[in-house]
Parts: sequence; C-alpha cells; structure tokens
Amino acid sequence: MNFEYTDKVKGLIEQLKTFMDDHIYPLEPDYLAWVSNHENDWKNWPPMEDLKEKAKAAGLWNLFLPANYGDLSPGLSNLEYAPLAEEMGKVQWSPEVFNCAAPDTGNMEVLAKYGSDADKEKWLKPLMNGDIRSAFLMTEPLVASSDATNIETSIVLEGDEYVINGRKWWSSGIMDPRCAVTIVMGKTDPNAPRHSQQSMILVPKDAEGMEILRPLPVFGNVDSPHGHGEVLLTNVRVPKENLLLGEGRGFEIAQGRLGPGRIHHCMRLIGMAQRSLELMCKRVAEREAFGRYIKDFSSIRQAIAKSRCEIDQARLLVLSAADMMDKQGSKGAKELIAMIKIVTPMMTQKVTDRAIQAHGGMGVSNDTPIAGYWVTARTIRLADGPDEVHMHQLGRLTVKEHTS
Amino acid sequence: MNFEYTDKVKGLIEQLKTFMDDHIYPLEPDYLAWVSNHENDWKNWPPMEDLKEKAKAAGLWNLFLPANYGDLSPGLSNLEYAPLAEEMGKVQWSPEVFNCAAPDTGNMEVLAKYGSDADKEKWLKPLMNGDIRSAFLMTEPLVASSDATNIETSIVLEGDEYVINGRKWWSSGIMDPRCAVTIVMGKTDPNAPRHSQQSMILVPKDAEGMEILRPLPVFGNVDSPHGHGEVLLTNVRVPKENLLLGEGRGFEIAQGRLGPGRIHHCMRLIGMAQRSLELMCKRVAEREAFGRYIKDFSSIRQAIAKSRCEIDQARLLVLSAADMMDKQGSKGAKELIAMIKIVTPMMTQKVTDRAIQAHGGMGVSNDTPIAGYWVTARTIRLADGPDEVHMHQLGRLTVKEHTS
Amino acid sequence: MNFEYTDKVKGLIEQLKTFMDDHIYPLEPDYLAWVSNHENDWKNWPPMEDLKEKAKAAGLWNLFLPANYGDLSPGLSNLEYAPLAEEMGKVQWSPEVFNCAAPDTGNMEVLAKYGSDADKEKWLKPLMNGDIRSAFLMTEPLVASSDATNIETSIVLEGDEYVINGRKWWSSGIMDPRCAVTIVMGKTDPNAPRHSQQSMILVPKDAEGMEILRPLPVFGNVDSPHGHGEVLLTNVRVPKENLLLGEGRGFEIAQGRLGPGRIHHCMRLIGMAQRSLELMCKRVAEREAFGRYIKDFSSIRQAIAKSRCEIDQARLLVLSAADMMDKQGSKGAKELIAMIKIVTPMMTQKVTDRAIQAHGGMGVSNDTPIAGYWVTARTIRLADGPDEVHMHQLGRLTVKEHTS
Amino acid sequence: MNFEYTDKVKGLIEQLKTFMDDHIYPLEPDYLAWVSNHENDWKNWPPMEDLKEKAKAAGLWNLFLPANYGDLSPGLSNLEYAPLAEEMGKVQWSPEVFNCAAPDTGNMEVLAKYGSDADKEKWLKPLMNGDIRSAFLMTEPLVASSDATNIETSIVLEGDEYVINGRKWWSSGIMDPRCAVTIVMGKTDPNAPRHSQQSMILVPKDAEGMEILRPLPVFGNVDSPHGHGEVLLTNVRVPKENLLLGEGRGFEIAQGRLGPGRIHHCMRLIGMAQRSLELMCKRVAEREAFGRYIKDFSSIRQAIAKSRCEIDQARLLVLSAADMMDKQGSKGAKELIAMIKIVTPMMTQKVTDRAIQAHGGMGVSNDTPIAGYWVTARTIRLADGPDEVHMHQLGRLTVKEHTS
Repeated sequence: MNFEYTDKVKGLIEQLKTFMDDHIYPLEPDYLAWVSNHENDWKNWPPMEDLKEKAKAAGLWNLFLPANYGDLSPGLSNLEYAPLAEEMGKVQWSPEVFNCAAPDTGNMEVLAKYGSDADKEKWLKPLMNGDIRSAFLMTEPLVASSDATNIETSIVLEGDEYVINGRKWWSSGIMDPRCAVTIVMGKTDPNAPRHSQQSMILVPKDAEGMEILRPLPVFGNVDSPHGHGEVLLTNVRVPKENLLLGEGRGFEIAQGRLGPGRIHHCMRLIGMAQRSLELMCKRVAEREAFGRYIKDFSSIRQAIAKSRCEIDQARLLVLSAADMMDKQGSKGAKELIAMIKIVTPMMTQKVTDRAIQAHGGMGVSNDTPIAGYWVTARTIRLADGPDEVHMHQLGRLTVKEHTS
Repeated sequence: MNFEYTDKVKGLIEQLKTFMDDHIYPLEPDYLAWVSNHENDWKNWPPMEDLKEKAKAAGLWNLFLPANYGDLSPGLSNLEYAPLAEEMGKVQWSPEVFNCAAPDTGNMEVLAKYGSDADKEKWLKPLMNGDIRSAFLMTEPLVASSDATNIETSIVLEGDEYVINGRKWWSSGIMDPRCAVTIVMGKTDPNAPRHSQQSMILVPKDAEGMEILRPLPVFGNVDSPHGHGEVLLTNVRVPKENLLLGEGRGFEIAQGRLGPGRIHHCMRLIGMAQRSLELMCKRVAEREAFGRYIKDFSSIRQAIAKSRCEIDQARLLVLSAADMMDKQGSKGAKELIAMIKIVTPMMTQKVTDRAIQAHGGMGVSNDTPIAGYWVTARTIRLADGPDEVHMHQLGRLTVKEHTS
Repeated sequence: MNFEYTDKVKGLIEQLKTFMDDHIYPLEPDYLAWVSNHENDWKNWPPMEDLKEKAKAAGLWNLFLPANYGDLSPGLSNLEYAPLAEEMGKVQWSPEVFNCAAPDTGNMEVLAKYGSDADKEKWLKPLMNGDIRSAFLMTEPLVASSDATNIETSIVLEGDEYVINGRKWWSSGIMDPRCAVTIVMGKTDPNAPRHSQQSMILVPKDAEGMEILRPLPVFGNVDSPHGHGEVLLTNVRVPKENLLLGEGRGFEIAQGRLGPGRIHHCMRLIGMAQRSLELMCKRVAEREAFGRYIKDFSSIRQAIAKSRCEIDQARLLVLSAADMMDKQGSKGAKELIAMIKIVTPMMTQKVTDRAIQAHGGMGVSNDTPIAGYWVTARTIRLADGPDEVHMHQLGRLTVKEHTS
Repeated sequence: MNFEYTDKVKGLIEQLKTFMDDHIYPLEPDYLAWVSNHENDWKNWPPMEDLKEKAKAAGLWNLFLPANYGDLSPGLSNLEYAPLAEEMGKVQWSPEVFNCAAPDTGNMEVLAKYGSDADKEKWLKPLMNGDIRSAFLMTEPLVASSDATNIETSIVLEGDEYVINGRKWWSSGIMDPRCAVTIVMGKTDPNAPRHSQQSMILVPKDAEGMEILRPLPVFGNVDSPHGHGEVLLTNVRVPKENLLLGEGRGFEIAQGRLGPGRIHHCMRLIGMAQRSLELMCKRVAEREAFGRYIKDFSSIRQAIAKSRCEIDQARLLVLSAADMMDKQGSKGAKELIAMIKIVTPMMTQKVTDRAIQAHGGMGVSNDTPIAGYWVTARTIRLADGPDEVHMHQLGRLTVKEHTS
C-alpha cells in the first residue's frame, strides 16, 4: 500500500498542468464571451481545432485509452490516467482538446474492444484522430430508464439489415455538428431473459430516419459541452454487421463501457470540486464583511475544511477503483465503481454549493466556472442511473457478502 | 391559537386557484415554448398584458399591499395575503399577472410609505396600475454586499440635485423593457455612524448616466422572470426631492421594506416546494422500475414524507411571521423574518432536489417547472443577504435573549 | 388563524413555570446526586411523593386528560395542554410530579375511554390519584414489532378466563415498584384479518406467571425515568372481563392511544430541545477560546440559529396537530400525528447534539441534563415504531392524496 | 500508488482475526454479563490478565509502537499497524488485551521518546510489559480546554521539586486500579509566549495531593473501558527530573503524541463502524416487516450503501495519514491528522446511528455492541479538541495554501 503518485505520473501531471496554464486557462474568458455573444453556440468556438493540434503535438492525446489496447493506446493504466482526468475536469470544455471527452471515450473503447476491422477503419480511426465525434443513445423518455431493462427501442433483423425504431433522449454528443456516428441500445429480443434482450448497434448520424427533435436544456441551459438531444428513430436501417458483439449482449457491453467512463467522470468531478475549493479560498481571503476577512469566520473555515476532507476522501476512493480496474477488470471493480458513482457527484454538488455561497451573487453567475460545475454535478447524479439505483444494488451486494 | 384559515381566506384561495386553473396553468407550455423559440425573451411574451387585465377584472390585483395603507390597499393583512402568494409561486411568471411581483411590490410599498405626493402621482400610480415596472439597485460587485455597510455608491448633493456614482449588480427588474423607475441605495455621508451613512433615492430608468452593462445569467440562464442586470451609474443627476425619507435613513427604509418582501418570497417558495411535491407524487405513481411502482420504494416514500414535513413546518413558520408582522410590525417580527429567510429557500432547495431526482433526466430539463424552482431557491439563498448573515444575527440575538 | 397562546394558556404556563422554579429546578442536583450514589435507583428518590402532593395542591394535576372526558378531566384541550407538556419536558422526572408521565397517561386515557366501571374503580381511580403506576406491554424481542401485526403473544379464552403467553420487552413502566397494573397487547385470533387479530387486556402486575426477566439498559443506562424491562408471560390467567373493548379491537385502541401520547412525547422533546438551546447560549456566552467568546464564532451562531429555527418549526407543527386532534380526533389528525413523530425526535437529537458539542466534555457527562435528553430523543426515534415506518405510511398517504 | 495490503500485513490481520475468533469474540457475552451483574465494574473482569498472557504468547503485543523505536518496537510501521487497530476496535475492551490501549500507548511513546533512562526503567518497562497502566491529565473543567493555551494547572519549581496545583477532568485511565503513573500537562511559565508556557510532567498516581474526586459518567455510564475521572492536584510534589523534555515544551510533546494516537483512535472507530455495518446486514436479512425482508426496503439498502461508502473512504484517508506519518512524521502529516479527526468520529456516529435504527429497540440496548460504539464515537468528537477546533485550523491552513 502506497499513497504517492509514481514519478511517471507526477511528470505527466506537471506536463498537463503546464499545457493548461499556457493554452487553456488563458482562453477561459474568451470561451465565456463567445457563448454569451453567440447564443450559447459552444459548438463552433473558433480556437478548439487549433488547441487540439497543440495537444496532439504535445503528446497529450487519447491518454484515456488503457494500456491493454496495445498499439492503439498511449500506454497509461486507469490509475495513471485518473489524476490527468482530474486536471482536465477543471475546465469543462478542455477534455475535448485532449480527445478525452465523453461520450467519445466510451465509444472509442467499445469500438476498440468489439468493433470489426471495418468499423475500426471507418469510425475508430477518425475518432481517435479527433476528426469526427460520436453520440451514445440509451435513455428513453417514455420509460424509467434507470432500470435499463425497461428500454423499448426495437432492433429487428430484416434480411441483411437491422431496422431500428424508438425514441431516445439525453443522447449525449448528438448536438455536436462534428458528430458522425452513434451507438444505439435497443431490444433485439423482447422475449429473451431480462438481461439478454438488449443489443448495441452502430448507426451513422446521417442515417435516414434519425431525426433530432430538439436540444435538451439542463437547468435552462442548452447543455454545453456535451450537447444532449432528443432523437426519434423511424425505420432506421443499417447493415447487420453494425451490431456489436452479438445479439443480446448489450448489457455486457454497457457494463464494460461504464467502468472507465465512471472513473473519468468522477475524476473530472473531483477536479471541479478541487478548483471550486481553491476559488473559494481565494475569494474569502480577499473580501471583508462585518469588520473581518471572510476567511476568518469559523463557519467559512468549516465549509472549507469539510470540503477538503470530502474531496480528498472521494479522490482516494476513485483512485482505488482505478487500481482495482487495472488489476481485476470491470467485474472485479464493480462495487467500487458503484461506490464512486454514489459518492462523487453528490460530493461535488455539496462542495460547489458551498463555493457558490462563499462567492455571494457572483457564485450563481457565469463569472466563475462554479455554477457550471454545479449543473454538471447535479446532472451526473442522474446520468448512468440515478444515485438511488446504485445504492439499491450496492446495498443488496453488501448484505449478501455479510450474510453468506 | 388557531391553525385554520378564516373563511375569507379560504374564499380568496379558492378564487385565485380558479383563476389559475382557468388562465395560468393552461398557458404554461405556451410560455415555455415562447422562451425556447425566442432566445429566452421572456420580457415580450404576448399573453401577459391580457392576463393582467383579466386579473384586474377579477379583483385579484395588488393584493400584496397591506390593509394599513388605507385606500391604496385592497385590504388584506399579511397573514391573509400569504397563502395567495403561495399559490402564485407555483407558476413563476404569474405574480406579475396579479401585479404582485418583486421588486415592484417592495418599491410600491416604499413609495406608499415614504413617497411625496408628486412621487406617488408620477411613479406609484402607474406601478399600481401595472403600466410600468421598476427596479431595485442595492448590491455591488466590488464589495461584500452581504454587509450592506460596505456599499460604496456615492450620492452627493450638488445644489438642487443629487449626483450618483457607482456600480451595481443583481439589480432586479432592470432588464424589463417596461421598467421606468429605480430605487438606488448609496452613501450620502461616508463619515456618519455605520448605519446612518446610507440613503435611498429615486432614479428614473432613463436618467442620463445610467448604463446597463449586461444582463446577469443565473446558472447559465438569463434570469427570468426577474431580469437581473449589472448597471453603471456615472454622474447621474436627480432632483434633491427624489431622496426618500431623508439622508442617512436608507437602512431604516431597507428594514421596513424587507419584512413583507421576505414573506412574499418565502410563501412563493413554499408554493414551488408544494407543487414539486405534488409533481413528484404523480411521477412516482406512474412509473415502474425493477418490477415495482417507484412510489412503492421506501426511499421514495421517505423523500416524500420528509418533504411534506419540511414544507408544512416552513409554511407554519412563515404564516406565524406574517401574523407577527400584522400585530407588531417589521421590528417586532424581526427575528421571525430572519428565521423564514434561513429556513425557506434551503427547504425549497432540498425538496426540489428530491423532486428532480424522482423525475430522472426530465427533472433537470424544462419539461417541468422544477428545475426552474431549484434555480430560484438556490439564488434566493443569496438574495437579501446570504443565509449565513441571517444566522449570524439570529444567533447573536438568541444568545442575548437567554443571557440577559 | 392566530399564533398566540390564549390568556388562559399563558396563565397556566406561568403557574407551571413558577411551580417548577420553586420546587423542581432546585432539586435537579439532588436527584442527580441520589442516582449517582444509589446505583441509579431513581425509583426510590425520596422527594417524589411530597412533590406530587404539592402539585396536586397547586391544581397542576392530571392536566393531560382532555376536556372531553367530562368530570374526570381538569378541562384542558390538547392544544391547551401542549405547552405545559413542553415545560414538564425540561426536567425529565418532572411529569410524574404532575401525574402526567408515560405510560400512565395513555393507560389512564384507555381506561377512561374503554374501561368498565369496575376497571375504573379498581385501576383508573388510584392511577389518577397518583397512588399506583402502570405499564404498557406491546413490543416483542422475537419479531420486528415496527410492524405491529407481527406481534405473537397469544391471548386465548379458556372458560371465564383469558390465558396469556408471550415475551415482551421495552415494557415501559414495568420496573417501577409502584407499578400495579399493565395493559398487554396480543393476538386473540391469529386467523382473523391482519388488523383484527389483536386485542388489549388488563393484567395485574402481580399476576401469576408474569416474570420480569431484566431491566433494559439504554445506552448502558438503566433507563430512568421510564424503567423499561423484558417480561415473560407464562400461562397468565385473568378474568375475561379484563379484555378491553372487545376481541380484535387492539389496533383500534392502539390508534386512539397513540395520538395524545405522541403530542405529549413531542412537546416534552421540544422542551428538552428548548432548554438545550438555552443552556448552550449560556455556556458559549461564558467561555473564551482563541481570544474570543465562543458565542462570537460564526459556526456557533449558526448552530444556535439553526436550532432555534428547527425548534420553533417543530413546535408549530405539534401545536397544529394538537389543534387538529381537538377538532377532528385521532383519525382526522392521523397524518399530522405521523409528521410530528418523524420530525420532533430527530430535531431534538440534532439540537442536543449541537448543545453537547458546545459544552465540550461536560456535554456528555451528567453535569447537565443534555446527555440525558439526547438518550431520550434517540430512543424515541424507535419508540411507537421507528421513524421509517411513519415515513413509509405518510409517504403512501401523500402520494394517494395527490394522485386520486 | 497501490491500494492493496502487503502480504506481511495480510498475514498479521489473519493472525489477529484468528486470535479474536478464538479468544475474544466468545467472551463478549461474558464481559457484558459481568458488567451488568457487578455494577459496571469493568476494571476487575476476571479473564483480562489471562488474555493478555495469551496475546503476549501469540506475539500480538505492543504492536502499536512504530519501528523507529528500535529494539523497543515489534517493528511495524504506522501503516502496517493501522488495519490491526481496526480489528481491535471491533471489541472495545480488546486493545488492552494486546497492550495497545489508550492512554497507555501515547504515554509509552512519550516515555520512549523523551523519558530518561530512569523513567524508562521505572515506568516504560512495566507499561510495555502490561504490569501497570497509566493516565493522561490534560483537560480542565474551569476553562475551554479546546484551546489548550487556556489550561491553568500550575507547575512551579521549588528547589529540586516541581509543585503542581490544578483541577483536571476527563483524565483517561485514572479510574483503572492498575494505573500507576500519570502524565500531567500544566503551565511552568504563564508569561512565556502562548505556546511555550506549557510543560508535561510525570506524576505517580499515588503522589500525595493527587485526589480522584469522582468518576465521570458518559451518557450516564461510568465510562468503560477508559475510565475517565475528575482529579484535584493540591501541592503535589515530584522530583524536577520528572519534567519531560524541558520547560515550555509541552505543546511539542502533545503534537508528537497526538498523531499516532489519532490514527489508532480513528482505525478503531473504523472497526466499530465496519462491525456495525456487518451486524446491520445480518439483522435486516433475518427480519420481516410489512410482508418483506427488511433488507429489501430501498431505504435500508441506501443506509447500508451509504455506510459502506463512508467507511471505505474514511479508511483510505486514515491509511493515507498513516503512510504520510511514516514518511514525513507528525509534522508532515499534520493536515491529514486533522482531517481524520474531523471525518472519522462523525462517520462512525452516522453509521452506528443507522445500525441502531435498523436494530429497532435492540439497537439502544446492550445486546449488541453498537450502542457502546455510538457512545464512544460521540465522545471522541470532543476528545483531543472538538471537531470545530480541527476544522478551524484546517480551514485556515487550506486558505493559506491556496492564496500564497
């Protein structure tokens, strides 16, 4: 047991921080001004493509893909990548700069793991090169998708093609104009056992019958940077080769996909919480009220101390999950993956709430990134299943372990 | 002691509910569609003026102004008006329909109390008639305005005019195109005792030197329905008669203004919490997950039970504050006014957070009013001074009472 | 609606406070010394009987019994009695002084309501005179008694007698040497519909076959002042007339019994919380740390402000429940009764936890009554069914109201 | 970074668990019966000395003393000892069996670090051999000892002796009849700079003038297993050699003493929380209510899931503090030591509160160890300075780090 980052990781963190200090943080106000002045058109912010080239040149590219993918991967383990995701989380649009943004990361890993050579050539290569983006279509408005067995989109084989019909929402990435391909979850066999009804299938964004109904606002915001949408699929036809891994194996893919994705999400959330703490410290050290610096009020000190304790604990938990993932895979890390999903978004919501309060009115404005962090944390408490579902399952497993 | 509404109040509630059922709730989707399709241009939503005429015709107009204002008032006490504010709170844009929206209500009461006959003719009459709207300029970006003695805007007498210089933000109402007049808080004498430095002054919105720098987004939203803005005042000149009540009496006005305003805010928040609870109940009764209706999960039942307990307690507290205000005025109700400001926004934040969670992804979207309620509750925790300031003062007073 | 106590109630509160100032508070240290020096033998503390005579002489006797019991009652409504229970709660052994202690109060009301003339003569009269005490035997160690339908004690008619067999615990009052009679809940017909299996029956404490197995410690304390015990009933025989109201009507009696009992419990808890707040205020005003009075730390002020807000809200809720009970009976007040049981013990636990913390080490000792309050509040969260059961039912009823 | 215990540690945990399964757990009911039947006379429970011999024979002895004490130490690092302390925590009287109980551990480390050869021979040797026990006298009833600079006990040099006067309470270990020596904190120079006024001095328990005034009950319990007392020191005289390290260096010793002590306390608390979780799982798997196993209520599953998440996070934090202590000493680990003191007792209080609730009435009784765990956790939130003091300092340090 050892709680220190390796020298390799320390070096990578340093390199990433330098890049962010040089290229990312200075552009934060520019990004904000752009979205304010262009009706929130985050999708076409000019500097993005240039930044991506710079990141690629600096070797800070695709770092998320674990070493076990051989030549495709830059060679980091989940445990090594985790603190880098934390840094990227501090600027919400920055993961795209490093080609480490959801839902592309999960989609790329699925393609690397289960894609045919043709899929890899057609979709994985341009994705890993940052030339296109992708979307993931799982949740549906008409059923409680927290129980994924409820999903109703149908995927029916007709000849050499699958025909897809359904309505999806919270389809992440779909609003990005660079989005070229989607992965869709649906039922190939509604009569199979509960967890073998589902399959995943590749659907090009421009497939006939795929219609984006509307962007989905999050707390009144058209949701940047992910760009969620509501999508109608009407008799969408794709070649049968587009089905991933095999009929009825959708859950299996989903499970494998979720582990690394949650570690990324959680480490980015920790980055948001950590930066909120730092901004809160700076703010309360600057301002005076009732004859004292705000930092000298014991209630503010408690807010800061509690936040720090919560952040550091959550970080250790996520890192231990990454370590477990590296050692025992998604299955062995299953409980830890549930735990970090329960703990981290709620922790970030609490820490950002305190940071908002310490900033006064500025805290709810766009003059700091904290209001945006809050929105993200609150939303992630619902993404990939609400907290309640994970607690329900973790509770069940825990009772089982202690009674058998 | 008696916990039942009088028959008069029951009748008014009934009348208001009927009006809302007939005219307000049916327009909720229309309002939402308008702001979605018109870049959030809530200010020009077509049906508003017509609705105002209908409310006026129904006698549901200016009900907020307490009976002690004689002929100006429709004759309700604070305690009688409170449950009506709760109903109005359920649709965030509806208080304007009844000419009961902030900051106009507070401004009208200030004018009714301290305005000269000329002020009343020029500003109060059209405000009470719903012809114009108004703004309130207090908070400043450069100081911790939670301690209002920090406010730095200067109000200097030069001949027959006051000259005003300063920078304000969170100026509520300023973005409304119908806004015609503002009340500005500033310092007339920075060398006077701490609580006698401040004054309030009437400034027409079109006064030379008053510049709106930008609207202020709240969690990424241009804040409807109040429309906060950042405002620069540069050598703004107004006749010396515009000064309200007298130099150095700004705090006195602020104190008197806050009491009823907080009761209104808090009762509207209770309306939001109550409607969130009702929407949550409906949602969980409709959906199934893991083989059971969501309403049958004990954790959901606890969320509902806790919410109900919290709402009902907060309502009783606010009503008791209104009763005290009627009996002993703002001064006698001072501690209760602090208490409801501490309790109610936080309560509504908690209840709406649970309701969001129970709605899944829909909860953070605009498909229900709950995400908007949350934003309002969160923001009001900072408005009129953050929770912390009120707890600081209430704590001090409570210790004093029990040790003297 | 009116939030002020009537003059009658104000007078009674004053009278009770004077009695407590004169006779009860001065004896607090004596009581403490006695239990410390007599192996916690609270049952034989010498001054008790004398105090009871004084209270009787002062007319502060049996005030709990509502006016609807005619001549038996001193004539107060539940709403009028409630604030008196709050005062009594401040000294945990004082309700007995006024013959207002559980479980006697509930037992007396049951006897007044359902007892035969013979029962009244034999048991109610000496109970109301304070000559004997009583116990209530409901909970069982072998089943989850939170679901009272689980209770297994059998009550079987054999000739003119009922024969009772079972094991009970948390039998309140059983350890008091003055206890002469008990009310036992058990099943007369295990095959009847779920809520008609149970009956209640009067069993003299000295009945053959009733064996006290052990006193039950609460957090390591032999529980004063209630004196819980574990009791074995083996072939206990009582005349069939001892059955109350009729076979299968145990739940009906239990429901009627619970309402007033919960109001008493909750108001006493509010008294404990209120006194904790007052003691906390005094303590922090006296002590200095890190160069400041403890009362001037903002975190302490927040603890005090939050506590006050929580206490005042809970008090209003309990008073509104008492008002409803007076107007609509136990059935009409059902939901409010559930709400106060959910809210009040948890509130008192939180407030006393803060008060303990503010007292430092002294807070966990017996040098203040706060540690004892905490134990009581924590325990009442489980008494009469744990919080969870009440939330489960209140949640269900609330969903029902908003969906039908 | 690596989150797995080494093989050495796994082996030790296994060995300790086996010992506890064989010798400790089977005696839990015997211990409980003894204290119930002997007026809580935990000090003379017969099996203790025999168990100590067994532990010594098994090599499970003094494991707490870190490897840097050379021959005195069995050779474990803090990180290696930590999981063993967790196991010992599960039975509150078991640390004494392994000679790893507070306050002896801290006192032994102080003697090993700062004691003269004579002190070591006279006190350290028999302590490490388990022949005697010791006490630590720091807190005082008359001042807010949370600010240790307030401490008023005087230590005055007169000739070759120091003369000690003062009043102490919460003197841990003083009630144990085997206690032979104490370490007393007091002021040698009240005019020195704030943190150089204090010294620590060895005082034999039987020194003339040292009077035990009373045992201190904790939540009504005479506090086992530590045995706190209130002590009066009146003109107590000891040779000047008894002063440890030097005049004015009391704070320095206290700081060094606290680090390992807090790690031990915290790991034992984690053991208590972990065992509570396990007992809660077993309980809810056994019982039924309202037609379902209690384990299948989602609220119970959430209680279990949250508890597990909180326990695992706290454990990681404490282990990381132990790792830091091994690498950088008490000074380098200062902030982590504050963090674990803030986090762990509160976490254990929350987890045990849930476990109590899941056990129903049994949870507050002595039939499980949980009620006792709760009392310990609640009390440790005040020991070594209340949570608030640690948050105050951690808050200050955190602001400093992010603003300089």
